Amino acid sequence: MYYSKADLAQLEHRERINLINSVSGIKPVNLIGTASASGATNLAIFSSVVHLGSNPALLGFILRPHQEVRRHTYENILATGVFTLNHVHRDFVQRAHYTSAKFPDEVSEFAACGLHEAYREGFAAPFVRESQLQLGLRYRESIPIPLNRTTLVIGEVENATIPDRVREEGGHLDLSRVDDVGLSGMNSYYALEKIAQFPYARPEELPLF
Amino acid sequence: MYYSKADLAQLEHRERINLINSVSGIKPVNLIGTASASGATNLAIFSSVVHLGSNPALLGFILRPHQEVRRHTYENILATGVFTLNHVHRDFVQRAHYTSAKFPDEVSEFAACGLHEAYREGFAAPFVRESQLQLGLRYRESIPIPLNRTTLVIGEVENATIPDRVREEGGHLDLSRVDDVGLSGMNSYYALEKIAQFPYARPEELPLF
Repeated sequence: MYYSKADLAQLEHRERINLINSVSGIKPVNLIGTASASGATNLAIFSSVVHLGSNPALLGFILRPHQEVRRHTYENILATGVFTLNHVHRDFVQRAHYTSAKFPDEVSEFAACGLHEAYREGFAAPFVRESQLQLGLRYRESIPIPLNRTTLVIGEVENATIPDRVREEGGHLDLSRVDDVGLSGMNSYYALEKIAQFPYARPEELPLF
Repeated sequence: MYYSKADLAQLEHRERINLINSVSGIKPVNLIGTASASGATNLAIFSSVVHLGSNPALLGFILRPHQEVRRHTYENILATGVFTLNHVHRDFVQRAHYTSAKFPDEVSEFAACGLHEAYREGFAAPFVRESQLQLGLRYRESIPIPLNRTTLVIGEVENATIPDRVREEGGHLDLSRVDDVGLSGMNSYYALEKIAQFPYARPEELPLF
Protein backbone atom coordinates (compact mmCIF):
# COMPACT_ATOMS: atom_id res chain seq x y z
CA MET A 1 0.00 0.00 0.00
CA TYR A 2 1.20 3.50 -0.87
CA TYR A 3 0.68 6.35 1.61
CA SER A 4 1.06 9.95 0.46
CA LYS A 5 1.75 12.66 3.01
CA ALA A 6 -2.00 13.41 3.02
CA ASP A 7 -2.80 9.71 3.61
CA LEU A 8 -0.42 9.62 6.58
CA ALA A 9 -1.95 12.80 8.02
CA GLN A 10 -5.44 11.30 7.82
CA LEU A 11 -4.66 8.13 9.76
CA GLU A 12 -6.32 7.74 13.13
CA HIS A 13 -4.03 9.21 15.84
CA ARG A 14 -2.91 5.97 17.50
CA GLU A 15 -2.57 4.11 14.17
CA ARG A 16 -0.39 6.90 12.83
CA ILE A 17 1.88 6.82 15.88
CA ASN A 18 2.28 3.06 15.65
CA LEU A 19 2.95 3.15 11.92
CA ILE A 20 5.48 6.00 11.99
CA ASN A 21 7.23 4.39 14.93
CA SER A 22 7.55 1.18 12.90
CA VAL A 23 8.69 2.30 9.47
CA SER A 24 12.37 2.86 10.28
CA GLY A 25 12.83 -0.89 10.79
CA ILE A 26 13.98 -2.96 13.74
CA LYS A 27 15.11 -0.99 16.79
CA PRO A 28 17.36 -1.88 19.71
CA VAL A 29 15.80 -2.40 23.12
CA ASN A 30 17.65 -1.02 26.11
CA LEU A 31 16.69 -0.46 29.71
CA ILE A 32 18.22 2.75 31.01
CA GLY A 33 18.97 2.58 34.73
CA THR A 34 19.48 5.71 36.81
CA ALA A 35 19.41 6.87 40.42
CA SER A 36 18.54 10.23 41.92
CA ALA A 37 20.99 12.12 44.13
CA SER A 38 19.29 10.51 47.14
CA GLY A 39 19.52 7.02 45.63
CA ALA A 40 15.94 6.47 44.41
CA THR A 41 16.19 4.28 41.30
CA ASN A 42 14.48 4.55 37.95
CA LEU A 43 14.33 2.16 35.01
CA ALA A 44 12.96 3.01 31.58
CA ILE A 45 12.81 1.23 28.23
CA PHE A 46 14.25 3.06 25.20
CA SER A 47 14.34 2.05 21.55
CA SER A 48 16.24 5.09 20.27
CA VAL A 49 19.80 4.30 21.35
CA VAL A 50 22.17 5.09 18.50
CA HIS A 51 25.89 4.60 17.99
CA LEU A 52 27.66 7.94 17.50
CA GLY A 53 31.31 6.96 17.43
CA SER A 54 33.94 4.54 18.68
CA ASN A 55 36.75 6.88 19.72
CA PRO A 56 35.60 8.21 22.09
CA ALA A 57 32.93 5.52 22.54
CA LEU A 58 29.76 7.60 22.34
CA LEU A 59 26.13 6.46 22.37
CA GLY A 60 23.08 8.70 22.24
CA PHE A 61 19.36 8.35 22.82
CA ILE A 62 16.36 10.53 22.03
CA LEU A 63 14.50 12.06 24.95
CA ARG A 64 10.94 13.22 24.36
CA PRO A 65 10.07 16.81 25.30
CA HIS A 66 10.98 17.22 28.95
CA GLN A 67 9.60 20.70 29.38
CA GLU A 68 6.07 19.48 30.13
CA VAL A 69 6.45 16.07 31.73
CA ARG A 70 8.87 14.98 34.42
CA ARG A 71 11.52 12.73 32.94
CA HIS A 72 13.14 10.96 35.85
CA THR A 73 15.72 9.33 33.62
CA TYR A 74 17.00 12.70 32.45
CA GLU A 75 16.81 14.41 35.84
CA ASN A 76 18.80 11.55 37.37
CA ILE A 77 21.41 11.62 34.62
CA LEU A 78 21.95 15.34 35.16
CA ALA A 79 22.06 14.86 38.95
CA THR A 80 24.56 11.98 39.06
CA GLY A 81 26.34 12.21 35.72
CA VAL A 82 25.94 8.50 34.94
CA PHE A 83 23.49 5.97 33.57
CA THR A 84 23.42 2.34 32.52
CA LEU A 85 22.25 0.63 29.33
CA ASN A 86 21.06 -2.93 29.76
CA HIS A 87 20.12 -5.29 26.92
CA VAL A 88 16.76 -7.03 27.07
CA HIS A 89 16.54 -10.79 26.58
CA ARG A 90 13.59 -12.91 25.62
CA ASP A 91 12.98 -14.23 29.16
CA PHE A 92 12.17 -10.79 30.59
CA VAL A 93 10.86 -8.89 27.59
CA GLN A 94 7.39 -8.47 29.12
CA ARG A 95 8.80 -7.08 32.38
CA ALA A 96 10.99 -4.70 30.37
CA HIS A 97 8.00 -3.50 28.33
CA TYR A 98 6.01 -2.60 31.44
CA THR A 99 8.69 -0.24 32.72
CA SER A 100 7.03 2.19 30.25
CA ALA A 101 3.91 2.42 32.45
CA LYS A 102 3.47 5.73 34.27
CA PHE A 103 4.00 4.62 37.85
CA PRO A 104 3.62 7.06 40.77
CA ASP A 105 6.77 9.11 41.39
CA GLU A 106 7.77 7.18 44.52
CA VAL A 107 7.65 3.76 42.80
CA SER A 108 10.81 2.32 41.25
CA GLU A 109 10.20 0.46 38.00
CA PHE A 110 12.70 -2.14 39.22
CA ALA A 111 10.40 -3.24 42.03
CA ALA A 112 7.16 -2.71 40.11
CA CYS A 113 8.32 -4.87 37.18
CA GLY A 114 10.15 -7.62 39.02
CA LEU A 115 13.64 -6.61 37.93
CA HIS A 116 16.65 -6.30 40.22
CA GLU A 117 19.29 -3.67 40.78
CA ALA A 118 22.97 -4.53 40.59
CA TYR A 119 25.80 -2.13 41.39
CA ARG A 120 29.46 -1.71 40.56
CA GLU A 121 31.70 -0.01 43.06
CA GLY A 122 32.25 3.64 42.27
CA PHE A 123 29.35 3.81 39.80
CA ALA A 124 26.16 5.47 41.07
CA ALA A 125 23.66 4.15 38.51
CA PRO A 126 21.98 0.75 38.88
CA PHE A 127 22.47 -2.05 36.37
CA VAL A 128 19.75 -4.63 35.68
CA ARG A 129 20.79 -7.95 37.23
CA GLU A 130 18.71 -9.92 34.72
CA SER A 131 20.57 -8.34 31.80
CA GLN A 132 23.66 -10.15 30.59
CA LEU A 133 24.98 -7.30 28.48
CA GLN A 134 25.41 -4.14 30.56
CA LEU A 135 27.05 -0.81 29.84
CA GLY A 136 27.94 1.98 32.24
CA LEU A 137 27.99 5.45 30.66
CA ARG A 138 29.08 8.88 31.74
CA TYR A 139 26.91 11.77 30.59
CA ARG A 140 28.60 14.03 28.08
CA GLU A 141 26.16 16.37 26.40
CA SER A 142 22.55 17.18 25.51
CA ILE A 143 21.76 18.44 22.04
CA PRO A 144 18.35 20.04 21.57
CA ILE A 145 16.37 19.20 18.43
CA PRO A 146 14.20 22.31 18.08
CA LEU A 147 12.04 20.85 15.27
CA ASN A 148 10.05 18.79 17.77
CA ARG A 149 11.61 19.71 21.10
CA THR A 150 13.23 16.33 21.62
CA THR A 151 16.81 16.04 22.89
CA LEU A 152 19.72 13.87 21.86
CA VAL A 153 21.35 12.79 25.13
CA ILE A 154 24.94 11.61 24.72
CA GLY A 155 27.00 9.40 27.02
CA GLU A 156 30.47 7.90 26.84
CA VAL A 157 30.95 4.20 27.56
CA GLU A 158 32.83 3.85 30.86
CA ASN A 159 32.54 0.09 31.26
CA ALA A 160 30.98 -2.90 29.55
CA THR A 161 30.01 -6.39 30.66
CA ILE A 162 29.74 -8.84 27.76
CA PRO A 163 29.34 -12.59 28.23
CA ASP A 164 32.12 -14.67 26.72
CA ARG A 165 29.73 -16.77 24.65
CA VAL A 166 28.52 -13.64 22.83
CA ARG A 167 32.02 -12.55 21.80
CA GLU A 168 33.43 -13.65 18.49
CA GLU A 169 36.85 -13.12 16.95
CA GLY A 170 37.81 -9.54 16.18
CA GLY A 171 35.28 -7.79 18.39
CA HIS A 172 32.17 -9.09 16.62
CA LEU A 173 29.22 -10.15 18.77
CA ASP A 174 26.44 -12.67 18.25
CA LEU A 175 23.53 -11.11 20.11
CA SER A 176 21.30 -14.11 19.49
CA ARG A 177 23.37 -16.17 21.94
CA VAL A 178 21.85 -14.23 24.84
CA ASP A 179 18.42 -14.10 23.19
CA ASP A 180 18.56 -10.35 22.70
CA VAL A 181 15.32 -8.88 21.37
CA GLY A 182 14.51 -6.08 18.96
CA LEU A 183 11.43 -3.87 18.70
CA SER A 184 9.33 -2.35 15.98
CA GLY A 185 6.94 0.44 16.80
CA MET A 186 6.30 0.52 20.54
CA ASN A 187 4.74 -2.90 21.07
CA SER A 188 6.14 -5.57 18.73
CA TYR A 189 9.14 -7.59 19.91
CA TYR A 190 11.35 -9.83 17.81
CA ALA A 191 13.83 -12.63 18.41
CA LEU A 192 17.10 -12.43 16.47
CA GLU A 193 18.95 -15.09 14.53
CA LYS A 194 22.42 -14.31 13.16
CA ILE A 195 22.40 -15.28 9.50
CA ALA A 196 25.52 -13.75 7.97
CA GLN A 197 28.79 -11.98 8.66
CA PHE A 198 30.37 -10.22 5.70
CA PRO A 199 33.90 -8.80 5.54
CA TYR A 200 34.71 -5.11 5.41
CA ALA A 201 33.53 -4.17 1.91
CA ARG A 202 36.24 -3.38 -0.66
CA PRO A 203 35.39 -2.60 -4.28
CA GLU A 204 38.12 -4.92 -5.55
CA GLU A 205 36.68 -7.84 -3.55
CA LEU A 206 33.11 -7.46 -4.76
CA PRO A 207 31.25 -10.80 -5.05
CA LEU A 208 29.49 -11.58 -8.34
CA PHE A 209 25.91 -10.48 -7.80
CA MET B 1 33.79 -10.48 30.66
CA TYR B 2 34.08 -7.06 32.27
CA TYR B 3 35.81 -4.22 30.39
CA SER B 4 36.86 -1.10 32.25
CA LYS B 5 37.44 2.11 30.34
CA ALA B 6 41.17 1.27 30.31
CA ASP B 7 40.43 -2.23 28.96
CA LEU B 8 38.35 -0.74 26.14
CA ALA B 9 41.09 1.76 25.31
CA GLN B 10 43.67 -1.02 25.05
CA LEU B 11 41.76 -3.14 22.54
CA GLU B 12 43.28 -3.48 19.09
CA HIS B 13 41.89 -0.71 16.85
CA ARG B 14 39.64 -2.80 14.61
CA GLU B 15 38.41 -4.98 17.50
CA ARG B 16 37.51 -1.89 19.49
CA ILE B 17 35.53 -0.42 16.58
CA ASN B 18 33.62 -3.67 16.06
CA LEU B 19 32.91 -4.08 19.76
CA ILE B 20 31.73 -0.51 20.39
CA ASN B 21 29.59 -0.63 17.24
CA SER B 22 27.93 -3.78 18.59
CA VAL B 23 27.21 -3.01 22.23
CA SER B 24 24.11 -0.87 21.72
CA GLY B 25 22.18 -3.91 20.48
CA ILE B 26 20.43 -4.71 17.23
CA LYS B 27 20.33 -1.88 14.69
CA PRO B 28 18.04 -1.17 11.74
CA VAL B 29 19.41 -1.57 8.23
CA ASN B 30 18.39 1.01 5.68
CA LEU B 31 19.66 1.85 2.23
CA ILE B 32 19.61 5.58 1.67
CA GLY B 33 19.02 6.49 -1.96
CA THR B 34 19.91 9.91 -3.35
CA ALA B 35 20.58 11.65 -6.64
CA SER B 36 22.81 14.59 -7.48
CA ALA B 37 21.42 17.72 -9.13
CA SER B 38 22.47 16.22 -12.48
CA GLY B 39 20.78 12.87 -11.71
CA ALA B 40 23.78 10.71 -10.78
CA THR B 41 22.53 8.23 -8.17
CA ASN B 42 24.04 7.09 -4.92
CA LEU B 43 23.09 4.30 -2.54
CA ALA B 44 24.53 3.80 0.94
CA ILE B 45 23.82 1.47 3.85
CA PHE B 46 23.11 3.08 7.23
CA SER B 47 22.45 1.50 10.61
CA SER B 48 21.89 4.71 12.55
CA VAL B 49 18.36 5.65 11.51
CA VAL B 50 16.40 6.74 14.56
CA HIS B 51 12.77 7.71 15.12
CA LEU B 52 12.49 11.30 16.35
CA GLY B 53 8.76 11.89 16.39
CA SER B 54 5.43 11.04 14.78
CA ASN B 55 3.85 14.46 14.35
CA PRO B 56 5.55 15.67 12.25
CA ALA B 57 6.92 12.29 11.16
CA LEU B 58 10.65 12.81 11.63
CA LEU B 59 13.51 10.35 11.21
CA GLY B 60 17.19 11.09 11.67
CA PHE B 61 20.47 9.38 10.87
CA ILE B 62 24.06 9.97 11.94
CA LEU B 63 26.50 11.16 9.32
CA ARG B 64 30.19 10.65 9.98
CA PRO B 65 32.48 13.70 9.75
CA HIS B 66 31.96 15.17 6.29
CA GLN B 67 34.65 17.81 6.53
CA GLU B 68 37.44 15.46 5.40
CA VAL B 69 35.77 12.89 3.17
CA ARG B 70 33.23 13.44 0.41
CA ARG B 71 29.85 12.18 1.53
CA HIS B 72 27.78 11.84 -1.61
CA THR B 73 24.67 10.98 0.33
CA TYR B 74 24.80 14.25 2.21
CA GLU B 75 25.80 16.40 -0.76
CA ASN B 76 22.91 14.96 -2.76
CA ILE B 77 20.42 15.52 0.07
CA LEU B 78 21.46 19.15 0.32
CA ALA B 79 21.33 19.54 -3.49
CA THR B 80 17.89 18.01 -4.07
CA GLY B 81 16.21 18.26 -0.67
CA VAL B 82 15.04 14.64 -0.69
CA PHE B 83 16.22 11.11 0.04
CA THR B 84 14.77 7.62 0.33
CA LEU B 85 15.00 4.98 3.06
CA ASN B 86 14.67 1.41 1.86
CA HIS B 87 14.46 -1.64 4.13
CA VAL B 88 16.82 -4.52 3.49
CA HIS B 89 15.49 -8.06 3.18
CA ARG B 90 17.28 -11.34 3.55
CA ASP B 91 17.45 -12.03 -0.20
CA PHE B 92 19.64 -9.01 -0.93
CA VAL B 93 21.47 -8.46 2.33
CA GLN B 94 24.88 -9.17 0.77
CA ARG B 95 24.29 -6.70 -2.08
CA ALA B 96 23.18 -4.10 0.47
CA HIS B 97 26.30 -4.65 2.59
CA TYR B 98 28.61 -4.02 -0.37
CA THR B 99 27.16 -0.56 -1.02
CA SER B 100 29.55 0.41 1.81
CA ALA B 101 32.61 -0.20 -0.42
CA LYS B 102 34.42 2.95 -1.54
CA PHE B 103 33.64 2.90 -5.25
CA PRO B 104 35.11 5.51 -7.62
CA ASP B 105 33.10 8.74 -7.69
CA GLU B 106 31.53 8.06 -11.08
CA VAL B 107 30.18 4.61 -10.11
CA SER B 108 26.65 4.29 -8.76
CA GLU B 109 26.31 1.71 -5.98
CA PHE B 110 23.02 0.67 -7.58
CA ALA B 111 24.80 -0.68 -10.65
CA ALA B 112 27.89 -1.91 -8.81
CA CYS B 113 25.84 -3.96 -6.35
CA GLY B 114 23.13 -5.29 -8.64
CA LEU B 115 20.30 -3.21 -7.21
CA HIS B 116 17.79 -1.25 -9.25
CA GLU B 117 16.46 2.28 -9.15
CA ALA B 118 12.74 2.97 -8.98
CA TYR B 119 11.17 6.41 -9.16
CA ARG B 120 7.96 8.11 -8.10
CA GLU B 121 6.69 11.04 -10.10
CA GLY B 122 7.63 14.35 -8.54
CA PHE B 123 10.24 12.81 -6.24
CA ALA B 124 13.89 13.26 -7.27
CA ALA B 125 15.54 10.56 -5.14
CA PRO B 126 15.71 6.92 -6.26
CA PHE B 127 14.03 4.11 -4.35
CA VAL B 128 15.43 0.58 -4.33
CA ARG B 129 13.20 -1.64 -6.47
CA GLU B 130 14.20 -4.75 -4.51
CA SER B 131 13.02 -3.19 -1.24
CA GLN B 132 9.40 -3.82 -0.29
CA LEU B 133 9.27 -1.15 2.40
CA GLN B 134 10.24 2.24 1.03
CA LEU B 135 10.06 5.74 2.48
CA GLY B 136 10.46 9.08 0.73
CA LEU B 137 11.75 11.87 2.98
CA ARG B 138 12.19 15.59 2.65
CA TYR B 139 15.30 17.06 4.27
CA ARG B 140 14.54 19.25 7.27
CA GLU B 141 17.65 20.02 9.27
CA SER B 142 21.24 19.11 10.16
CA ILE B 143 22.31 19.19 13.77
CA PRO B 144 26.06 19.14 14.42
CA ILE B 145 27.40 16.96 17.23
CA PRO B 146 30.62 18.80 18.12
CA LEU B 147 31.88 16.04 20.48
CA ASN B 148 32.99 13.92 17.52
CA ARG B 149 32.06 16.06 14.52
CA THR B 150 29.25 13.79 13.39
CA THR B 151 25.92 15.23 12.24
CA LEU B 152 22.32 14.26 12.95
CA VAL B 153 20.55 14.62 9.59
CA ILE B 154 16.77 14.94 9.91
CA GLY B 155 14.11 14.29 7.30
CA GLU B 156 10.32 14.29 7.32
CA VAL B 157 8.42 11.32 5.89
CA GLU B 158 6.70 12.43 2.67
CA ASN B 159 5.46 9.05 1.49
CA ALA B 160 5.60 5.41 2.50
CA THR B 161 5.13 2.13 0.67
CA ILE B 162 4.25 -0.74 3.00
CA PRO B 163 3.13 -4.17 1.75
CA ASP B 164 -0.33 -5.20 2.92
CA ARG B 165 0.94 -8.45 4.43
CA VAL B 166 3.23 -6.52 6.81
CA ARG B 167 0.43 -4.34 8.16
CA GLU B 168 -1.47 -5.42 11.24
CA GLU B 169 -4.43 -3.88 12.99
CA GLY B 170 -3.90 -0.46 14.53
CA GLY B 171 -0.78 0.52 12.61
CA HIS B 172 1.45 -2.25 13.95
CA LEU B 173 3.81 -3.95 11.51
CA ASP B 174 5.31 -7.43 11.38
CA LEU B 175 8.69 -6.83 9.76
CA SER B 176 9.49 -10.54 9.66
CA ARG B 177 6.85 -11.05 6.93
CA VAL B 178 9.15 -9.33 4.43
CA ASP B 179 12.26 -10.93 5.90
CA ASP B 180 13.64 -7.63 7.15
CA VAL B 181 17.13 -7.90 8.62
CA GLY B 182 18.91 -6.23 11.52
CA LEU B 183 22.60 -5.54 12.07
CA SER B 184 25.03 -5.60 14.97
CA GLY B 185 28.36 -3.91 14.60
CA MET B 186 29.15 -3.34 10.94
CA ASN B 187 29.21 -6.91 9.66
CA SER B 188 26.75 -9.19 11.47
CA TYR B 189 23.25 -9.55 10.04
CA TYR B 190 20.23 -11.07 11.73
CA ALA B 191 16.86 -12.45 10.69
CA LEU B 192 13.86 -11.34 12.76
CA GLU B 193 11.00 -13.36 14.21
CA LYS B 194 8.11 -11.54 15.84
CA ILE B 195 7.56 -13.15 19.24
CA ALA B 196 5.26 -10.83 21.20
CA GLN B 197 3.04 -7.81 21.00
CA PHE B 198 2.17 -6.19 24.31
CA PRO B 199 -0.50 -3.53 24.91
CA TYR B 200 0.25 0.07 25.83
CA ALA B 201 1.55 -0.28 29.40
CA ARG B 202 -0.72 0.99 32.17
CA PRO B 203 0.23 0.62 35.86
CA GLU B 204 -3.27 -0.62 36.74
CA GLU B 205 -3.03 -3.40 34.13
CA LEU B 206 0.32 -4.75 35.24
CA PRO B 207 0.66 -8.52 34.76
CA LEU B 208 1.81 -10.61 37.72
CA PHE B 209 5.55 -10.96 37.26
